[in-house]
Amino acid sequence: MTFNEIPGGVTAPQGFLAGSAFCGIKAGNTNRPDLALIYSPQRTVAAATFTTNRVKAAPVRVSQLNLRSPDVRAVIANSGNANACTGLRGIEAARRMTRAVAKALELKERQVLVCSTGRIGVPLLVEKVEAAISQGFPAALSRQGGGHVAKAIMTSDTFPKETAVECEIDGRPVRIGGVAKGAGMIDPNMATMLSFLTTDAAIEKALLQRALSVAVENSFNRVTVDGDMSTNDTVILLANGLAGNKPLRPSSIGLKSFQRALEHVTQSLARMIIEDGEGVTKFVEVCVNRAANYSDARKIAEAVAKSSLVKCAWFGGDPNWGRIMDAIGYSGAKVREELVDIYYDGVIAVRGGMASRTPFAKLQEVVAARRFTVTIELHLGAGEYCVLTTDLSTEYVKLNMGE
Amino acid sequence: MTFNEIPGGVTAPQGFLAGSAFCGIKAGNTNRPDLALIYSPQRTVAAATFTTNRVKAAPVRVSQLNLRSPDVRAVIANSGNANACTGLRGIEAARRMTRAVAKALELKERQVLVCSTGRIGVPLLVEKVEAAISQGFPAALSRQGGGHVAKAIMTSDTFPKETAVECEIDGRPVRIGGVAKGAGMIDPNMATMLSFLTTDAAIEKALLQRALSVAVENSFNRVTVDGDMSTNDTVILLANGLAGNKPLRPSSIGLKSFQRALEHVTQSLARMIIEDGEGVTKFVEVCVNRAANYSDARKIAEAVAKSSLVKCAWFGGDPNWGRIMDAIGYSGAKVREELVDIYYDGVIAVRGGMASRTPFAKLQEVVAARRFTVTIELHLGAGEYCVLTTDLSTEYVKLNMGE
Repeated sequence: MTFNEIPGGVTAPQGFLAGSAFCGIKAGNTNRPDLALIYSPQRTVAAATFTTNRVKAAPVRVSQLNLRSPDVRAVIANSGNANACTGLRGIEAARRMTRAVAKALELKERQVLVCSTGRIGVPLLVEKVEAAISQGFPAALSRQGGGHVAKAIMTSDTFPKETAVECEIDGRPVRIGGVAKGAGMIDPNMATMLSFLTTDAAIEKALLQRALSVAVENSFNRVTVDGDMSTNDTVILLANGLAGNKPLRPSSIGLKSFQRALEHVTQSLARMIIEDGEGVTKFVEVCVNRAANYSDARKIAEAVAKSSLVKCAWFGGDPNWGRIMDAIGYSGAKVREELVDIYYDGVIAVRGGMASRTPFAKLQEVVAARRFTVTIELHLGAGEYCVLTTDLSTEYVKLNMGE
Repeated sequence: MTFNEIPGGVTAPQGFLAGSAFCGIKAGNTNRPDLALIYSPQRTVAAATFTTNRVKAAPVRVSQLNLRSPDVRAVIANSGNANACTGLRGIEAARRMTRAVAKALELKERQVLVCSTGRIGVPLLVEKVEAAISQGFPAALSRQGGGHVAKAIMTSDTFPKETAVECEIDGRPVRIGGVAKGAGMIDPNMATMLSFLTTDAAIEKALLQRALSVAVENSFNRVTVDGDMSTNDTVILLANGLAGNKPLRPSSIGLKSFQRALEHVTQSLARMIIEDGEGVTKFVEVCVNRAANYSDARKIAEAVAKSSLVKCAWFGGDPNWGRIMDAIGYSGAKVREELVDIYYDGVIAVRGGMASRTPFAKLQEVVAARRFTVTIELHLGAGEYCVLTTDLSTEYVKLNMGE
């Protein structure tokens, strides 16, 4: 059940090729590569999770459809334009992106997934993307291209986000690699979270989807910067089986190792997203214990993590537990005020719903740090949930005030 | 169905006395009066609405109980300490406040309602409050005291908030007066919305409660600054019947006039609260039309009004409709993206889920103003809802970063 971090990102697992190109659709037109491609010459099984926003970007709709293909081979992604709120023309543009990749790599259109991130509501100049695909790929693809993907999908991100691990299944080394872009404002219209994952594990498609869904639930779904869910959020996982392990099945002993390694990758990427949140000065884990049930624990953790007032207090270094009590109260979860305990990094701030005897200065010390944990004990049941969040800074407002 | 605004606030209706005193419980200890009392020498019927937060301040619990009294005569309120998260001692402190008022005015304890606003989690020095009540009242009470109440309940408010109207029922003049304090941060722990209303109308108790609940739903419940619901929110309405109209019953012709006049008062006060919101630079009405139903319209209006990203964009004068589309999408309401239209002050920004042809500069002009309306048309049904909100400014963050 151990695993090691290894270099290489999405090209760390055997067999995957990746690379980037420049298509120039971004406003301001920097020369930074803005097109990323991941390609598997081998058959894969694919899994994905998508935004639950009812306003979905065109590439999300196209990828949802193409995910049904039994043998997805490529993921194409552009930054600089989200291709969201672009109507039927947007759908056609997304399909043209998959078609261009299919042509360049001799695949079927439905073997290509597509993602976009950037400004929304602006028609995508798909001709530029097509030209860059046909001129740039497959030449730009390589076994060392993981890092290029990480850079090409960046928007307001300040650093590229990639990681990979190696674990052992059936005595064979199995690798999982991943790349992500952050939940920051994009050019400056929309927060989008994209993540592409690859593995050389052999695994059944349905099981891969289950493993991914659980991993996403335990990582990307547990980070929140501003509570605004994007129209473009997408996580994709391709598995090509080259590690040569006995294909993982629900009963496989190795499944647990795979799941742990996968979650290590998704959690590392989720943490990088939070750490690169716009204007962020504090990283706070909010953990709720002994809530009436899981759903209540989650409601409370999310209410606290999304409260503007709580987040402003953290920004100011104020251990304002009154605002936390308030958010607990309006979360919708079952609460018995007189049973609530709240800790800042293990230092008790609230005991039985009231101020503890901890000196205020001691709590201030904890909140002065860049990272701390808020633990909320409800004493009602066995529900537990943790979420990773940030403060709300003047810088966040400035970065998001647009034009 | 017409009514006139008149001076006097809560003492505009016949018979009500009001006044303020200084008890000095506020940190920093300004000399500003921090204790307010409204008193009716005549019998009243009383109605009230309270915060739905499950963490409720002690005065809320005591007032909920005392509201059952058939003849409430007084409302005592302090600013500077919310008496929330203070346990059984807090309940006792709130009861001691009602007892002190009952003694000073020769009432029963249960004829007194009590409210607090200010820092939470700090024990209330109730001896100071008791001393101020016994020394200050009833001497400080007068028929001109409405304005004193408005000032004494202020915390971070920058101006006192009161209004009154006169309408005609059964050919007799009926008056409704009101006072409120704002949804700003308090000292600086908690946003609390308090409002006290008085009327000389004769009306049945059950009907008064229904009228108040509807008025609150159409006013105070339709404003949001930061989405953080307080532990202390309370709205109280006392009716003493001195206008001499035939007591209003569900079938009374005059009931409609009364309801309109009451809503004029609550809506005026709600607007003042928004206009005094901390760090606010924009006042935005978000109206949703033709949603699948009322509940969906409300979900959408509230999601848009509470989105940090939407509010930051407004602060920056950016007519960022992409963020509005995004919030509509995650609101949980039924949405058909391709049917959504969005208008800024009647200027179309989004048609059928996509950018309209309106030049961006024209939308920027609208959002440059201090006040504007965002109208969202869903084209799905007859659901309508409007909410009044603000931008999210760097100043808001600064005001709420605490210590």
